[in-house]
Amino acid sequence: MNRNDLRGKKILALVSGGLDSTTIVRWLSASGIDVTALTIDLGQPDEKNLDVIPARMKAAGAKEALLLDGKERLAEYMLQVIRGAASHEGGYWNTTGIARMATVAVALPVIRQHGIDVVTHGATGRGNDQVRFELALAMLAPEVSVYAPWRDEEFEAELGGRRLMIQYCQREGLQVTATEEKPYSTDANFCGLTHEAGRLEQLTTPSDFVDFIMGVSPMQAPDKVEELTIRFEMGTPIAVNGESMGIVEAFQTLNRIGGRNGVGIGIDVVENRRIGIKSRGVYESPGVSVLAYCYEKLLQLTLDRSRRKLMDVISRQLADAVYEGEWFSPTSASLLQVTEGIAQLATGQITVGLYKGNIRFVAAKDVPHSLYDEAGASMEKIGDLRHTWAEGYMQIADYVARRMAVAGQTRKP
Amino acid sequence: MNRNDLRGKKILALVSGGLDSTTIVRWLSASGIDVTALTIDLGQPDEKNLDVIPARMKAAGAKEALLLDGKERLAEYMLQVIRGAASHEGGYWNTTGIARMATVAVALPVIRQHGIDVVTHGATGRGNDQVRFELALAMLAPEVSVYAPWRDEEFEAELGGRRLMIQYCQREGLQVTATEEKPYSTDANFCGLTHEAGRLEQLTTPSDFVDFIMGVSPMQAPDKVEELTIRFEMGTPIAVNGESMGIVEAFQTLNRIGGRNGVGIGIDVVENRRIGIKSRGVYESPGVSVLAYCYEKLLQLTLDRSRRKLMDVISRQLADAVYEGEWFSPTSASLLQVTEGIAQLATGQITVGLYKGNIRFVAAKDVPHSLYDEAGASMEKIGDLRHTWAEGYMQIADYVARRMAVAGQTRKP
Amino acid sequence: MNRNDLRGKKILALVSGGLDSTTIVRWLSASGIDVTALTIDLGQPDEKNLDVIPARMKAAGAKEALLLDGKERLAEYMLQVIRGAASHEGGYWNTTGIARMATVAVALPVIRQHGIDVVTHGATGRGNDQVRFELALAMLAPEVSVYAPWRDEEFEAELGGRRLMIQYCQREGLQVTATEEKPYSTDANFCGLTHEAGRLEQLTTPSDFVDFIMGVSPMQAPDKVEELTIRFEMGTPIAVNGESMGIVEAFQTLNRIGGRNGVGIGIDVVENRRIGIKSRGVYESPGVSVLAYCYEKLLQLTLDRSRRKLMDVISRQLADAVYEGEWFSPTSASLLQVTEGIAQLATGQITVGLYKGNIRFVAAKDVPHSLYDEAGASMEKIGDLRHTWAEGYMQIADYVARRMAVAGQTRKP
Amino acid sequence: MNRNDLRGKKILALVSGGLDSTTIVRWLSASGIDVTALTIDLGQPDEKNLDVIPARMKAAGAKEALLLDGKERLAEYMLQVIRGAASHEGGYWNTTGIARMATVAVALPVIRQHGIDVVTHGATGRGNDQVRFELALAMLAPEVSVYAPWRDEEFEAELGGRRLMIQYCQREGLQVTATEEKPYSTDANFCGLTHEAGRLEQLTTPSDFVDFIMGVSPMQAPDKVEELTIRFEMGTPIAVNGESMGIVEAFQTLNRIGGRNGVGIGIDVVENRRIGIKSRGVYESPGVSVLAYCYEKLLQLTLDRSRRKLMDVISRQLADAVYEGEWFSPTSASLLQVTEGIAQLATGQITVGLYKGNIRFVAAKDVPHSLYDEAGASMEKIGDLRHTWAEGYMQIADYVARRMAVAGQTRKP
Repeated sequence: MNRNDLRGKKILALVSGGLDSTTIVRWLSASGIDVTALTIDLGQPDEKNLDVIPARMKAAGAKEALLLDGKERLAEYMLQVIRGAASHEGGYWNTTGIARMATVAVALPVIRQHGIDVVTHGATGRGNDQVRFELALAMLAPEVSVYAPWRDEEFEAELGGRRLMIQYCQREGLQVTATEEKPYSTDANFCGLTHEAGRLEQLTTPSDFVDFIMGVSPMQAPDKVEELTIRFEMGTPIAVNGESMGIVEAFQTLNRIGGRNGVGIGIDVVENRRIGIKSRGVYESPGVSVLAYCYEKLLQLTLDRSRRKLMDVISRQLADAVYEGEWFSPTSASLLQVTEGIAQLATGQITVGLYKGNIRFVAAKDVPHSLYDEAGASMEKIGDLRHTWAEGYMQIADYVARRMAVAGQTRKP
Repeated sequence: MNRNDLRGKKILALVSGGLDSTTIVRWLSASGIDVTALTIDLGQPDEKNLDVIPARMKAAGAKEALLLDGKERLAEYMLQVIRGAASHEGGYWNTTGIARMATVAVALPVIRQHGIDVVTHGATGRGNDQVRFELALAMLAPEVSVYAPWRDEEFEAELGGRRLMIQYCQREGLQVTATEEKPYSTDANFCGLTHEAGRLEQLTTPSDFVDFIMGVSPMQAPDKVEELTIRFEMGTPIAVNGESMGIVEAFQTLNRIGGRNGVGIGIDVVENRRIGIKSRGVYESPGVSVLAYCYEKLLQLTLDRSRRKLMDVISRQLADAVYEGEWFSPTSASLLQVTEGIAQLATGQITVGLYKGNIRFVAAKDVPHSLYDEAGASMEKIGDLRHTWAEGYMQIADYVARRMAVAGQTRKP
Repeated sequence: MNRNDLRGKKILALVSGGLDSTTIVRWLSASGIDVTALTIDLGQPDEKNLDVIPARMKAAGAKEALLLDGKERLAEYMLQVIRGAASHEGGYWNTTGIARMATVAVALPVIRQHGIDVVTHGATGRGNDQVRFELALAMLAPEVSVYAPWRDEEFEAELGGRRLMIQYCQREGLQVTATEEKPYSTDANFCGLTHEAGRLEQLTTPSDFVDFIMGVSPMQAPDKVEELTIRFEMGTPIAVNGESMGIVEAFQTLNRIGGRNGVGIGIDVVENRRIGIKSRGVYESPGVSVLAYCYEKLLQLTLDRSRRKLMDVISRQLADAVYEGEWFSPTSASLLQVTEGIAQLATGQITVGLYKGNIRFVAAKDVPHSLYDEAGASMEKIGDLRHTWAEGYMQIADYVARRMAVAGQTRKP
Repeated sequence: MNRNDLRGKKILALVSGGLDSTTIVRWLSASGIDVTALTIDLGQPDEKNLDVIPARMKAAGAKEALLLDGKERLAEYMLQVIRGAASHEGGYWNTTGIARMATVAVALPVIRQHGIDVVTHGATGRGNDQVRFELALAMLAPEVSVYAPWRDEEFEAELGGRRLMIQYCQREGLQVTATEEKPYSTDANFCGLTHEAGRLEQLTTPSDFVDFIMGVSPMQAPDKVEELTIRFEMGTPIAVNGESMGIVEAFQTLNRIGGRNGVGIGIDVVENRRIGIKSRGVYESPGVSVLAYCYEKLLQLTLDRSRRKLMDVISRQLADAVYEGEWFSPTSASLLQVTEGIAQLATGQITVGLYKGNIRFVAAKDVPHSLYDEAGASMEKIGDLRHTWAEGYMQIADYVARRMAVAGQTRKP
C-alpha cells in the first residue's frame, strides 16, 4: 500500500508520540489525509508524561488525537502468557509482543466508532512488530487495511532515517525533542522493556552496557535476601506479602521488589524473528520474572507427569504465537484452552527469596490440588505405596526392554 | 526375584561402599551366594577414599571386589546430555540419572568376563534408580537378571531400615562408620549432587538448609564478577580460559569456577518420578550449569527458527529418557542423532561473567555456522534484506489472517 | 490383592455373562463373598440376549445382578474420540478402549448406591483392559479397590484356563454354553468389534480369516457405489441422508450402510499395548469409519495450517489416552478442550460414495467456517490475493534460506 | 526481480516444454537475454516424448537446451519420503513436492558448469511450487538469484493468461500444440500425479471427474484380489514378487500392479498451501501407496511404543518440510537422521492383497528386528511375561491415578 491509496480514507495512526510519530502524522496530513492519532497508556516506565502527546499530534496535523488506558488489558494478557509459561527463545517474556496485542485490542472500539478504513503504524519492514500489529488487526478487524510507511518506497526515499526526519520536522516547524541518539533503541511498558539494535547488535557488547530502567543489575542490588510471598487463586495473584491487590498493582509491586533485587534485569537473548532473521535483545521484566517463577512452582506441585509433558509442548507453541502476533488466532484459542484450564488448579501460596538476581524457593503452602505427598515420596516411611509392588512393575519394564535388546534395537554403550 | 532364586548363580553387586552395600553383600554371602562387588569411581565429591571399598566388601563376604574408573564415560555421556539441552523438569541436569548409565556401561565388561547371571543394586522400590539400573542393564545385557533386595519381602522384613542394618552389621562383626544420620540423603558424582528425602521432603525447608559440597550458595560467593571463556569445537569444550583440556578436566575446572561463584548450587525442584509420584530434589551442578549456558548461547546463534522448535521438542524427550533410564533405548538413539547432529555446528568461543549465582553473557566469537548477521538484523542499515520486500510478505500474511476472521474462527479480544 | 482380602467387603463384578463371568462370580460367592454382578448393554452385535444374564449370575451366586443401558454414554464418548481424530496406531478406532470408559462411567452410580468396596473384572494380566478398567475406576472412584482374579496366583493355579473353568462350572452344576472354542477371541459393542489372539497371533493369518459380524469384507460387498450424506452441527451428526436422528441411531445407521459396503471391516494392526508388548488386532467399525472420514473432511475445510499441525499432535496423544485408559485423566481434560473446541466449528454437510471398502469424497456443502475459498485458491482467477505480493514474500524466504546455506548448514543433495 | 534485472546475466530456465515454457523462453530471449533451457526427465506418465523439447526450446530462442534424466534421484528421494511416513495432510504423498527437489538437485551441476546467475521457473505466485523451487535453490546454490515471470507485473500484464500466451506464440511464429483447454491442470512424474484447479476447485466435483492416468478407479478395477510381495532390506525394496530390481523399477512395477487395482488412485484432499491459503488436489500414486503400506507394516512390527510416538511427530514435520520445499534445510537434516536411522531396522518381507482400491495385509515374514512375539502377546500361552507381575504394575498405576482423583484433578464422567 502506498500513500496514494489513502486518499479519501479515514486513517488511524498508532503512535508512541516521538520523532517517528510526529513525522508520519505530518507527512500524511500534509497531503490531505484524514488522520486520527491514538496513543495507548501501557504504563511505559521510560515515559514521564503521555498526556502531552495528543496535543503534539494535533500540532503535527492529526484531525483528532486520543490517549487511552491499556494497562488492565495488558495485565490480563500478560497473566495469560505467564500461565502459559510462554517465554520465548532464551527466556524472553514476550513483553513487547503481548503489548502489541493489548494495543490493538484497545484500539478496536476506536476503529469501529470512528469508521476507520486504514490503520498505520511506525514499525519497520524487518522486525516483528509489523507482523504483530497487522495480524492482530487482520484477525480482529478484517475489514480494515494497513499502511506501513517504512515499507512505502516513497516514504523511505524521502524520510528514511533519523536525520532526515529531524530535518523534516524542523522544516515543518514541529517541535521535536532533539534527544541525543541513544546507542540502542528501547520499547517499554509496565510489564517489561526491550533493548535492541545499535551497539547491542555487536555480540561483544555485554548486556550491562544498557541503562536499566525497571531495576538494577544484580551487581548493584543489595547484599541481602528479600523474602516475598504471592498468593494465587485459580491462577490469579490475589495478594503480595499478604496484601490483597488487583493484577495491575501486583505487577507493579513485583516490579519494584524484583527490580531492586536485580531479578529479571538484563535477560540477554539472540532470537529468531518471525521473518527468519536473527536479532539480539536485552530485556527487563522483574515483576513478570518473579510471578512466573512462583507460578511454575505451583505447576511443579500440580502437574502430573503426562500433563507436564503436554504443557511443555503447548507452552513452546504459545510462546511462538505471542512472539509472532498470533494471539487472536484459532491456534491460540486452542492453546489457551489448555493453559487457562490448567490455571484453574493453580491455587496456593509461594514464598521465595530474592537475592542479587537470584530467585530461590522458600516455601509452598495451601495448595489444594497438589499431587506432592510427603508420605508417598519418602524413601523411609511408606504410606500406601509399597516397595514390593515395584517388583512386578519392574519385571514388566525389564521384559519389554530385554525384548528390544534381543531384537537388536538398543544402542551400544 | 527373591534371595532363593540366587542359589548357584554368579551375582554382581553394584555398591557404593556404605551401610547398605555392606549389609547386602553380607546378607547374600552369608547364605552361600557367590557375590562380586563392583564400585565405580565417578569422582564422587563427597567421598574421600574409594580405594578402601574393595577390602571392606571382601570383609563383608564378597568373593571378589573391584573398583573401576568411570569418569571418562560419565563425562562423555554428560556432554551428550548438555548438547541435548536435556535438563529435566524445573532445570535439574539429570546428573544422577546419567551416572547410572555410566555405571552400567562400565560394569558391562565385568558382567561378560565374570559370567554374571544376576546383578543386584541397593535402590529402593519407590525411586527412579531401580528403573535406571535395570533398564540400562536389560538393554545392554538382556541375558542378565536383576535382584533388588529392597523389593524382596524377606529382606525388607529383616533389614528394612537404617537401624536394623546397623545392628545386623554389628552382630556380624562388620565395621560400619557410625555416622550420624544426615537430615537428608545425597547422591554424588563429579557432574553433580542430588539431595533429597528427610527434612527436604517438607516444602517449608528451603534449599539452603543443605550443606553444599560442590560450591557455595550465591549469598556466600564473592562480590565480584569472574569472567570465563569456553572454546567449543563441534560441540566439545576444548579449552577453558585459553587452556586446552580434556572433557573430564573441563568439567572439574568449571565445577571449581562455577562453584565458587554460587552458580548451579541449590537448584530446587519438585519433579515427577518415573513411576508417577512426586519428589523434591535440591541439586548442585556448577560445571554442568556453566557449560550448558555457553552451549545454549551457541545454539541461539546457529539454530534457525524451525530447527529451534524441533530441538525444543527433542530436548524435552531426551531429558525424560535420561531421567527414566532409557539412555540406551531405540528412542534415545533417534533423539541423540538429532542432538549430536546439531552439535557438529557448535563451534565457537563464548565468554560469560559469573556473579553470585548469575551467569551473564559477555561475548561470542568465531562462530562459523552462526546465522546471526549484524547487517541483516539491524534496523538502521540494510544489508541485503529490503524493507519493501516485507510489503508482499505482510499482504499475504494479512490476507490469510483476514480469511480466518471472516470465517468466524478468530478469538475475541 | 488376593481373594482373602475380600472377606467382609462388598464386591461389584463387571461381567459380560460368559464362562469367565460365571466362574468368577461362583468362585467368589462360594467362599462367602458378597458379589453384585453388573452387565452393561453396549449394543453388543454378537450377543442375542443380554436380558438373561442377571438370572445366570444369580444362579452362579451373585447376591444381586443388574443390567444397565450404556449405549448413550458410549455414543457420546465415541463421538468425542472421532472429533479428536483419535484413532490409535495403524488406524484402530479405539472402540474397545472407549467402551471400557463408558462401562465404568455407567457403573459409577451403582458403586456409590451399593456402597461397593472392591470392583472385580475378568481382564487378564497382559492386556490393555485391566489398565483401562482400573485407571478409569481409580480416577472416578479413588476410594474403591480392585481385585483381578487373573492376577491372583490362587485363581490362576485353580482355574487358569478354559478347560479348568468349564470343569469347575460343571462340578458346580452351573449351566455354561458348551460353545466350541473359537479360533480367536472377540470383544464387541455397537461402535466396533475387536478380534485378537488365537490364530490371529500368527502373522500369516490374513484378516479375512475372521467371520465379520458388523458387515462384509470388500470382496463380498455389492459392485455398486452407495452415496451417503451426513449433516453435522457443531461437531455432532444430526442427520443421515436427510433424516434427523440422535447419535446412537446415527452410529447404528452408519454401521448398516458402511458395513454392507465393506467399509471399516477388517482393519488389521500390529500395535503396542500399554505395558509395552505388541499384539495384533483385526477390527470392525463401519459406522465409526464413515463418520470419521466425513468429520475429517470438515476439518480439512476449517483447520488452518497452524491449527492442523496442533490437531495432529493432540490427536495422537488423545488416541494414546483412550487406548491406555486415561480418558478421565487431567491430560485428557486438556486434550479434549482442544478437540471439543475445534468441534464447535465443524458444521456442514458431507456427501461420500461407499464402494467395496472405499470411501470417496463426493461433495461438501454449507460449511460456514470453511477457509476454503475458490477464488483464493484458483490459479486462474485472482480474488484478493495478488501474484505480485509473492515477490516480497519469496525474497524474504529466499534470503533466510541463503543465509543458512552460507553458514554451511544446509544438506547436500 | 524484473526482466530488466536480467540483462547481461546467464539465465537457466527450468521448463516442462509446454505453452508456458515456450512463451517465457521466447519473451526473455527476444529482449536479448541469454537463456539455457533445462528439462528433467522424471518419467512423466502423461508425456509421450520429452526428446523433442530441447529443439522446441531452441526454436523459441534458447541459446542452449538440455534434457537430463532425474529418475534415479527422484526415486531415491521418494523412498526417503516413504521411510519418513511423510504423507501430507489428508494422505497426499507429496509426489509433486519431492519432484521439485529432484529437479533442483539435478539442475545443480548445470548451474555450476554453465556459470548460471539467475534461474527462472514458470510457477505462479499463489502456489507451492515457487516456494519449492526457490528454497531448494537458495539452500543448494545461494549465489544464484531467481526470476519468476508470473510475479513480474510486466509479464503478467502482457502475457498473463492462456489466451494471451497462445496469441503471443502465434505472432512469434512458434508452434504450440493447440490443445483443448483441460478442465483442470495436471503435474506428473513417475511417482505420482497431481490434478488441481479448474473444475476441481468446486467442492461438488467428485474426484472421479478426473481422467486417471496411472491406473483405474476402484470401480473400474477387476473383481479379483491380486497378491503382491515386497522384500525390504534396511528400508529399501529390493524385490517385488521375488524378482530383484532397483528402486526405479520397483516404483514402476508397483505403479502397474497398484494402478490396475485402483490403489492410490483419486486421493482427494483439501490442503493448506505454504502461504496459508487452501487448495484442493486429486492425486494418483499407486506404487507409492503400495510401498508405503508395506513399509508401515514393517514399522508396526519394529517400532516400540516410545519410538512410534516419536516417529509420528517426526513424520508430520517431515511431511511439511517436503510439501513446503524445505528438503535441504537443517531441520530436514535432523528429521531424516531419525527416519533414515529407523529405516536400518526395516528388513523383511510383506505380502498384501490388492482389491479394487483396498490394500489388505496377508503376511509378514523374516523380520529380524521385529518386537512382535507370539508367545508374549498371547492371552493363552505365557512365555516369559507372567500375569501376576501385572499386580504390582497396576497397583502403582492405580495409586498414582487415585492421587490425582483425591487432588481434584480428574474429569467427571
